[in-house]
Amino acid sequence: MAWNTNLRWRLPLTCLLLQVAMVVLFGVFVRYDLDADAHWWAEKSRRNISSDLENEFYYRYPSFQDVHVMVFVGFGFLMTFLQRYGFSAVGFNFLLAAFGIQWALLMQGWFHHVEDRHIILGIENLINADFCVASVCVAFGAVLGKVSPVQLLIMTFFQVTLFSVNEFILLNLLEVKDAGGSMTIHTFGAYFGLTVTRILYRRNLEQSKERQSSVYHSDLFAMIGTLFLWMYWPSFNSAISYHGDSQHRAVINTYCSLAACVLTSVAMSSALHKKGKLDMVHIQNATLAGGVAVGTAAEMMLMPYGALIVGFFCGIISTLGFVYLTPFLESRLQIQDTCGIHNLHGIPGILGGIVGAVTAAYASPEAYGKEGLAHSFDFQGFKEGWSTTTQGKFQIFGLLVSLAMALMGGVIVGLILRLPFWGQAADENCFDDGVYWEIPEEKSTVYIPEDPTLKPGVHSAPLVPSVPMVSSIPIASSAVPLVP
Amino acid sequence: MAWNTNLRWRLPLTCLLLQVAMVVLFGVFVRYDLDADAHWWAEKSRRNISSDLENEFYYRYPSFQDVHVMVFVGFGFLMTFLQRYGFSAVGFNFLLAAFGIQWALLMQGWFHHVEDRHIILGIENLINADFCVASVCVAFGAVLGKVSPVQLLIMTFFQVTLFSVNEFILLNLLEVKDAGGSMTIHTFGAYFGLTVTRILYRRNLEQSKERQSSVYHSDLFAMIGTLFLWMYWPSFNSAISYHGDSQHRAVINTYCSLAACVLTSVAMSSALHKKGKLDMVHIQNATLAGGVAVGTAAEMMLMPYGALIVGFFCGIISTLGFVYLTPFLESRLQIQDTCGIHNLHGIPGILGGIVGAVTAAYASPEAYGKEGLAHSFDFQGFKEGWSTTTQGKFQIFGLLVSLAMALMGGVIVGLILRLPFWGQAADENCFDDGVYWEIPEEKSTVYIPEDPTLKPGVHSAPLVPSVPMVSSIPIASSAVPLVP
Amino acid sequence: MAWNTNLRWRLPLTCLLLQVAMVVLFGVFVRYDLDADAHWWAEKSRRNISSDLENEFYYRYPSFQDVHVMVFVGFGFLMTFLQRYGFSAVGFNFLLAAFGIQWALLMQGWFHHVEDRHIILGIENLINADFCVASVCVAFGAVLGKVSPVQLLIMTFFQVTLFSVNEFILLNLLEVKDAGGSMTIHTFGAYFGLTVTRILYRRNLEQSKERQSSVYHSDLFAMIGTLFLWMYWPSFNSAISYHGDSQHRAVINTYCSLAACVLTSVAMSSALHKKGKLDMVHIQNATLAGGVAVGTAAEMMLMPYGALIVGFFCGIISTLGFVYLTPFLESRLQIQDTCGIHNLHGIPGILGGIVGAVTAAYASPEAYGKEGLAHSFDFQGFKEGWSTTTQGKFQIFGLLVSLAMALMGGVIVGLILRLPFWGQAADENCFDDGVYWEIPEEKSTVYIPEDPTLKPGVHSAPLVPSVPMVSSIPIASSAVPLVP
Repeated sequence: MAWNTNLRWRLPLTCLLLQVAMVVLFGVFVRYDLDADAHWWAEKSRRNISSDLENEFYYRYPSFQDVHVMVFVGFGFLMTFLQRYGFSAVGFNFLLAAFGIQWALLMQGWFHHVEDRHIILGIENLINADFCVASVCVAFGAVLGKVSPVQLLIMTFFQVTLFSVNEFILLNLLEVKDAGGSMTIHTFGAYFGLTVTRILYRRNLEQSKERQSSVYHSDLFAMIGTLFLWMYWPSFNSAISYHGDSQHRAVINTYCSLAACVLTSVAMSSALHKKGKLDMVHIQNATLAGGVAVGTAAEMMLMPYGALIVGFFCGIISTLGFVYLTPFLESRLQIQDTCGIHNLHGIPGILGGIVGAVTAAYASPEAYGKEGLAHSFDFQGFKEGWSTTTQGKFQIFGLLVSLAMALMGGVIVGLILRLPFWGQAADENCFDDGVYWEIPEEKSTVYIPEDPTLKPGVHSAPLVPSVPMVSSIPIASSAVPLVP
Repeated sequence: MAWNTNLRWRLPLTCLLLQVAMVVLFGVFVRYDLDADAHWWAEKSRRNISSDLENEFYYRYPSFQDVHVMVFVGFGFLMTFLQRYGFSAVGFNFLLAAFGIQWALLMQGWFHHVEDRHIILGIENLINADFCVASVCVAFGAVLGKVSPVQLLIMTFFQVTLFSVNEFILLNLLEVKDAGGSMTIHTFGAYFGLTVTRILYRRNLEQSKERQSSVYHSDLFAMIGTLFLWMYWPSFNSAISYHGDSQHRAVINTYCSLAACVLTSVAMSSALHKKGKLDMVHIQNATLAGGVAVGTAAEMMLMPYGALIVGFFCGIISTLGFVYLTPFLESRLQIQDTCGIHNLHGIPGILGGIVGAVTAAYASPEAYGKEGLAHSFDFQGFKEGWSTTTQGKFQIFGLLVSLAMALMGGVIVGLILRLPFWGQAADENCFDDGVYWEIPEEKSTVYIPEDPTLKPGVHSAPLVPSVPMVSSIPIASSAVPLVP
Repeated sequence: MAWNTNLRWRLPLTCLLLQVAMVVLFGVFVRYDLDADAHWWAEKSRRNISSDLENEFYYRYPSFQDVHVMVFVGFGFLMTFLQRYGFSAVGFNFLLAAFGIQWALLMQGWFHHVEDRHIILGIENLINADFCVASVCVAFGAVLGKVSPVQLLIMTFFQVTLFSVNEFILLNLLEVKDAGGSMTIHTFGAYFGLTVTRILYRRNLEQSKERQSSVYHSDLFAMIGTLFLWMYWPSFNSAISYHGDSQHRAVINTYCSLAACVLTSVAMSSALHKKGKLDMVHIQNATLAGGVAVGTAAEMMLMPYGALIVGFFCGIISTLGFVYLTPFLESRLQIQDTCGIHNLHGIPGILGGIVGAVTAAYASPEAYGKEGLAHSFDFQGFKEGWSTTTQGKFQIFGLLVSLAMALMGGVIVGLILRLPFWGQAADENCFDDGVYWEIPEEKSTVYIPEDPTLKPGVHSAPLVPSVPMVSSIPIASSAVPLVP
């Protein structure tokens, strides 16, 4: 069938409709948290708060900015590895994240931050909104290159909704701990995205295979994303932990896990290549698995060596996944996972959930100190007969719930996205910015030297990169990778 | 006429002269603020300051670093979108900012931070210096590609001077509030730059038109600038607000405004293209307008939905500006605005000033609390008969003063820069790094295959990108965009 | 002789061996610092610590993240300037840093942070580990393009060890002050690396000369590294200074020195080119020399103008070094310094050591205040008959020790790395990613237009960049710079 990818009305209307809805809902529901309200000035003295620094802002702001960078630059550039899809990778990620954070502020607000019929907004909400959107960015990685921006906005709308419900079940009903979101963000995001891409299976995708690979410079752009994700991951896993030792510990554990993960990823990447050469795909992705897998346990007394062990195995498993599992998923299960999120967020996410459950189950008063243990797991009084073992069990329940929600939600959303009128491209036009973006036309005049001694063929070469050329031969942009 | 663009003596002398002047003036005038002086160690106990954290450093440093990134990476890379002007965009921005911050520390110091005949230097001065330079970076956007580094240093010298005078009039005489600098930074910077580029009007600029467009990868580099500006803008608007709730609120408002702005920019970009395709220029620029327009009101009780509304309209107006206004300005008013700063900083800046005035005029004790209101607008005692309405009026005066200063200053500086001996390039050589930079020579040997079965023309293709080619045919660098 | 660059077993085994060792050693030796331990929760009240903010975490974390970015993005991208070595520059830097920080945590831990037979780990250790690795990144710059990843891991292992010994001698035995590490990080790193590259001298390196230059876009990628190093250097020099005024002062001094350095680097770069054109190499490197040279004295009462003077001369000296010294070192002393670290870290490092010594020697109670002086140089009581002059002398001793350690260590490590079985490449294959990386194959179908009116040679031109081409002619990747 022929696809209409002209979004002239569909995209603008979707954006404006959603944004107007946001304005109205914010007007009705959202107010400032006291820490961000001018009344705080008076309240301070009333509560005799000694210093302005006690404003939550100063505990969280640096971590918030790091998380913000991970969502917009980290995920955005990580996905620019495709040779002709950089505009969409960065641009669509920008679009869906900008909408997602607003919708997440509302959804999470309704579940967690309502005070007399209003959502109160503070720095912590902003961090949580970024977290929620991170799980959408993860899912985006699975469908990258195969969906239209309209589909992405719809997916974001539903995924943020489901994320918030799932998060509420885990954190409030099951009272699960998940500082770095191994379960709520990564496991949920990955399996949701994989289910969606399964439903949207494209039979003839090999027609655009050539554009599914990277080119030299697109791989360097992707490394910008990788490194900012890697460097700021300690902030990610510690951003909403309790003040003091918890945040401090979460940073150390994540730092250790990520470091170990790099070495084992490199080791496997080289070992799995017949000539021992490294593959950029592994360096760009597998090196991050350690941050995912230490997410849940990051704020617990995992111990530095514990973190190293987690990173050690994740680097290996993730790289193996890229080499063996991804092709298998595509050929056998018809799951076309563009960025291999199953290896970076799926498996490591599940491992993270399990590591968290075990660490919680074996938490002892010796390791935490009596008050420390009660504080870390909120055992203070109100939880009768609650033990670390119970906590461990519930952590596992939480993991299973996340998986169930992801699969269920993924099926429903996938079916909605399969409707033919969202402006998606045909199989042969996937992974091509040209479909949704005005691409700068590469023109260049060429000087044909008079020198007759030259071999004929040499004349035209300086045309770099002339698409179309002087003679304006029409060439499908897909035919020529724009950059080496 | 023929232009001499050889800066061998002019640029070095200008740089050294200015730098020597800075050393001397710093030697005579600049000392450390007590918070940065070793005497603080003793002073602390004398003032019984409970904790080292009360040092201003810890309130401001994280925001300072973010602002620093915006000035050097944000503005620098945002302007790399031109296909052959990346070195100059990043490099000249680096140069003028490095000089500008030093000169700003002096100028602003004399106006705001003198203690017994010395300028005292602390973290707040550094932030303000970066702010001042930001307005020069804005103006740079208007003349990008058409001026020499010498001209830029001269422009920086005068603009920083005028900025400081204007800032003093607004903040100290009119007692205007302008946390994010919608008026002092963006409005002033934009209209100053636009006036300068008007005076420097180049009649035959279409001779270098081909280099005024972007290429695939230069657009991706520009997105690095866009995203770091977008992500750190909350730090920008909150960096010098009052401690506690003000900083907290400024972050939330900016975050909301920017998010809304992205959706409406995308909507308009698509709606204005006959095939509904997105234009990178809009995504790179219009998405930031929300940060500009919420600058003045960011620390006020604008409310989250208020911020969303501001961002909503700025995205629309800014994108419309790029499509309709920029061409009009060039053809009718002979204003050649390379980066379209009028749409990103000019109009949004004015809107920001108005929004601030209105928000201030309607500030009520209910919204702020009595102490909160007095604190936010410095009404404590010393201002007799000062009301929020008066404040609103003065905010508008402030906006008008900024515009007047920008136009006046722009004319004078423009005339100075028009003098023929600053090393500016001829119209046909604009937007070309080759004029002021040693460009890496692209050479490559080529293997002409013996295989006779090959089509003749195909032989030479491997020459990628050989400028000059094997036969070293001289080719004007301007003739061949170096990279796709 | 023929070199075997297949690392299939050597690299994986090295990585896994080292990582397993790390896990074991961390298991035996490393525990959390109290500030990062759940016991802190109880300890807090016992010590009646008023606020969670008093946790060391909040004093250091923002600076830590900035330093982290400098090590991984800063150094990594700064070295991507080579046209065909971007993967290795970023990737190997990533690898060696990830291993280096773990080994540094152990080595530095044993020397500085042992509490009853355990290394206690807190945010300060993380910063120091990053510092230590920074000196390895510096040395990497000298051997860039000429060593295998296996060699880099071995070099890292030994250099981190030596660094820690040297650091212990300076800081603990000689009681030297070196906040920004002019001596311990830059001088040591630079001369260690230069000695290693001297021992590894490659006679026929001109065979890969063409790949030793940059290309247009690789220079832009390098600017990402330059700018993040430049912007975050104030965090680098202040990250481990004493709380309060010392950190604050270190930031101001570094900020000033770096600003001045930019202007003088630009001045010299232009003055030394016959047509007054700027050279990217100078802008990328010399502009940073000011941060290196102000390292030791950053936290001292150097005064802002003092910092400007330091930056002023470093920009000049460093640029001169790139133009005259680097070629001399290669031709006469057979020191092949790929990135010119001698000009960026070597000379400025020594200057920094001297500036620090002089500033310390002339430190007066007037300038610091009695308590301030005692506090800044730890003169409190326990140091009998210790004067600022003594301090100055010991600073110089520290510099000399660092130089000695670097040269000695460099010789030994160089000889080890010269063994023929580490997978190093032959001279003609240096500076080529293709040796150790799976490079994305650039294929592209080409449409040969039927239009007979076209010049023959023009047909094939759209092949951009087709290596190998349609007809799959094998072409040595080294023959064709992949990107303009």
